[in-house]
Amino acid sequence: MKHWTLLELAQHLNAELIGDGDYPVTGIATLANAQPHQISFLANMRYASQLADCKAGAVILHPDQDHYFAGNKLLLNNPYLGYAKLSALFATASAYQGVHASAVVAASASIGDAVVIGPGVVIGEHVRLDAGVHIGPNCVIGDHCSIGKETRLAANVTLYHGITLGQRNILHSGAVIGADGFGFAKDGVDWVKIYQLGGVVTGDDVEIGAGTTIDRGALDDTRIGNGVKLDNQVQIAHNVVLGDHTAIAGCTAIAGSTTLGKNCTIAGACGITGHLYLADGVHVTAMSLVTHSIKEAGAYSSGTSLDANHKWRRNAARFKQLDQIAKRVKLLEQEQ
Amino acid sequence: MKHWTLLELAQHLNAELIGDGDYPVTGIATLANAQPHQISFLANMRYASQLADCKAGAVILHPDQDHYFAGNKLLLNNPYLGYAKLSALFATASAYQGVHASAVVAASASIGDAVVIGPGVVIGEHVRLDAGVHIGPNCVIGDHCSIGKETRLAANVTLYHGITLGQRNILHSGAVIGADGFGFAKDGVDWVKIYQLGGVVTGDDVEIGAGTTIDRGALDDTRIGNGVKLDNQVQIAHNVVLGDHTAIAGCTAIAGSTTLGKNCTIAGACGITGHLYLADGVHVTAMSLVTHSIKEAGAYSSGTSLDANHKWRRNAARFKQLDQIAKRVKLLEQEQ
Amino acid sequence: MKHWTLLELAQHLNAELIGDGDYPVTGIATLANAQPHQISFLANMRYASQLADCKAGAVILHPDQDHYFAGNKLLLNNPYLGYAKLSALFATASAYQGVHASAVVAASASIGDAVVIGPGVVIGEHVRLDAGVHIGPNCVIGDHCSIGKETRLAANVTLYHGITLGQRNILHSGAVIGADGFGFAKDGVDWVKIYQLGGVVTGDDVEIGAGTTIDRGALDDTRIGNGVKLDNQVQIAHNVVLGDHTAIAGCTAIAGSTTLGKNCTIAGACGITGHLYLADGVHVTAMSLVTHSIKEAGAYSSGTSLDANHKWRRNAARFKQLDQIAKRVKLLEQEQ
Repeated sequence: MKHWTLLELAQHLNAELIGDGDYPVTGIATLANAQPHQISFLANMRYASQLADCKAGAVILHPDQDHYFAGNKLLLNNPYLGYAKLSALFATASAYQGVHASAVVAASASIGDAVVIGPGVVIGEHVRLDAGVHIGPNCVIGDHCSIGKETRLAANVTLYHGITLGQRNILHSGAVIGADGFGFAKDGVDWVKIYQLGGVVTGDDVEIGAGTTIDRGALDDTRIGNGVKLDNQVQIAHNVVLGDHTAIAGCTAIAGSTTLGKNCTIAGACGITGHLYLADGVHVTAMSLVTHSIKEAGAYSSGTSLDANHKWRRNAARFKQLDQIAKRVKLLEQEQ
Repeated sequence: MKHWTLLELAQHLNAELIGDGDYPVTGIATLANAQPHQISFLANMRYASQLADCKAGAVILHPDQDHYFAGNKLLLNNPYLGYAKLSALFATASAYQGVHASAVVAASASIGDAVVIGPGVVIGEHVRLDAGVHIGPNCVIGDHCSIGKETRLAANVTLYHGITLGQRNILHSGAVIGADGFGFAKDGVDWVKIYQLGGVVTGDDVEIGAGTTIDRGALDDTRIGNGVKLDNQVQIAHNVVLGDHTAIAGCTAIAGSTTLGKNCTIAGACGITGHLYLADGVHVTAMSLVTHSIKEAGAYSSGTSLDANHKWRRNAARFKQLDQIAKRVKLLEQEQ
Repeated sequence: MKHWTLLELAQHLNAELIGDGDYPVTGIATLANAQPHQISFLANMRYASQLADCKAGAVILHPDQDHYFAGNKLLLNNPYLGYAKLSALFATASAYQGVHASAVVAASASIGDAVVIGPGVVIGEHVRLDAGVHIGPNCVIGDHCSIGKETRLAANVTLYHGITLGQRNILHSGAVIGADGFGFAKDGVDWVKIYQLGGVVTGDDVEIGAGTTIDRGALDDTRIGNGVKLDNQVQIAHNVVLGDHTAIAGCTAIAGSTTLGKNCTIAGACGITGHLYLADGVHVTAMSLVTHSIKEAGAYSSGTSLDANHKWRRNAARFKQLDQIAKRVKLLEQEQ
């Protein structure tokens, strides 16, 4: 089992070490579950009381909180960030190496150094995979795709033709990049397909969750900025533009040609309709529907709060009378 | 075509047989569409009038309703349950047997008796497949997974590494189990990935729908109880715990570290935010958003009811004035 | 690079050509981005001002707007439809031909003329693929499926057994057709699976988006009409019936046994509960929940409008008092 000494971890985090620098650490765990060979962290004062009985071999703490734990500790101004940085050390690596014999790789593809292509993968014509790219089992990469250095695709990811991914992207299983945008022109009752001729371009350090779909643009490209993080089952329609470092939680759908600014956070199960512009720093709470552009940073919401069903029914029935109620209140005020 | 005699079906259901025990039955159908070689059932009195003209060779009925049908019948207290039990007899079996030559199975994998591994499957290192496990075509099973007896994966299912599935699970196509939870720590404007070191553990008799995603835990495991049923395109985030026999309908999303009790039913397209606790026996109606813990069993809802768009627009506009309207009503009351 | 002369394009669209019929066109682009070798179009008067500086080699215009552009033009009553029809000419074709050596095709399958079967595809027993069918890499087609002429499956599509697709369908990656409907009978706390014995049947000219799931029927079939267009991550439950030319945007979920009429448009992220009937020509706006049948054509909505979170909180709190507020207003009116 791989392990690090506490001194090595302190140096990795640039943290102040208090205790035994030779202490071996083989994993990370929560305060409640940590064992002596593991390191833990206090990121939320709600859990400070757990430190008294914590069995962890070491704990990452804010310097102001070092008195909460008697054992080995690493002091850092942002213990949660310290945890994040350590988590990478303990992640499981895949066993695949090189290009698996069962993969079908077009002769015209360009394969960089140390690229891993798993079993069952299909790589189309004129694909370019830069150094350190990792393609998981049964992925399909369409013709003319380009994938930047050290980008990793888990198993069963699909890239249509002409997709460009930046460096250090992570794409999770079931993700589909570059399917046709949902575009049709009406011809009487018939829908005539608008073939989608644009592509998808992602920046660096993008993560795309399981089952997430990003459609190719109609004419121009759909564009995902640097450091964007998309959770599972997110739907990004054609010609959407996502600004750098914007994060979108699971099951949110963004309709065509909408632009989100930088550093936005969109919670789960939201909908954002098409052809809108959201400013930098917009935050939308869970299951909200955005139907107008938002010009100012801030938090936005729609919907109603949960209630016992029998109460909700009565209030929901009244919602249909709300305009009438408002008019009646006005009348009462006038007649006073 | 496989068939059963009516006596065999009666014995299978422990039902009272009235009629010809030798009558051959080759399928099940609705009362409206059943043909003489098929059996049908009356589970909802709304359809009782269809019995007069029903061509079914036999009908499953509650003993109190046996006078509605003149032909062969099986009497049972729960005809709908009887239908469910018979449906298994008429399900289509896959033609695959053994391990297909095109599958890529790691030498370190442990393969039980009567395991079926379809074409194009990829099985990682140290995987354990118990007796009777069925892996459909083009599935990918990561390293160190363990799959219990008679569990079936349809085609194109993805299991990341270190996933543990119980016995008699059914996983539908496109399901992704064990992708990384959506965890990041902020470092200025950057999101630093928190590698997800936990796993996913399912109990026995779990069914997981097409395109459903269940993320691995951050440190501890994401846990799915015995008899849990998840419909299609459900999203289960990291460290969620689902109690036994809880059922969740399509497109519902549950955010991280939320615990649902036993015997809950969550309707389709709901959202449940993170770090909540829902008691046993909680029922949430369609497209509701749960943002607080629920301590008591019962039915809960949010949202508004559908209305004609031109009426809805007026009421939705008034919703933005609701707090003001309430204050004006209070003022009117005070000024009376 | 493939190209067409302007005369060829005019003839293809049956448009009036003004300008140089020999002018070569190699692509389509927006007015803002078009280069001299590309054609563009004016479909929305909002963009008319861009025509002054437009570098396109030709523009498709309504005859009334031909004075907006000085260069080559094609005049058509519906420029957007013209754009749609031209887009097909410039779509990228896949390089795959014939049946790839790595595909696993059952000997009992019937393969029509000019069928393409990509690498890693698995085709079950007694499958029928009509002339010109295209199956993308790593697709899985279950036993006894039938696929009509010129229908195209992108990579990683899954068809369970016994699915019937019409002619000229397009199925995008990650789509799953024919997984089990979500059907269970209660037996105490246990859910007893109702095996799903129906199929899925699609008409002609159906398009099914990435990650969309259409469940097989419980006993009868799930049915998708001619010309139906489904966007990404749509969920169609068992025994749903969709009328001809109905279009459904991304992430909408339709529960079991609901019937939609013809020419409906359902926006994104909607929910429609089970056992409902929606008339022809019903339009539902984004993220609306439909819980009752709709007998009349028209537009329908539910939900509330987005607001700044601090305002929304106050109004959402008042929503829980709405029935009481309404009663208090009534009391005030009576006491006047």
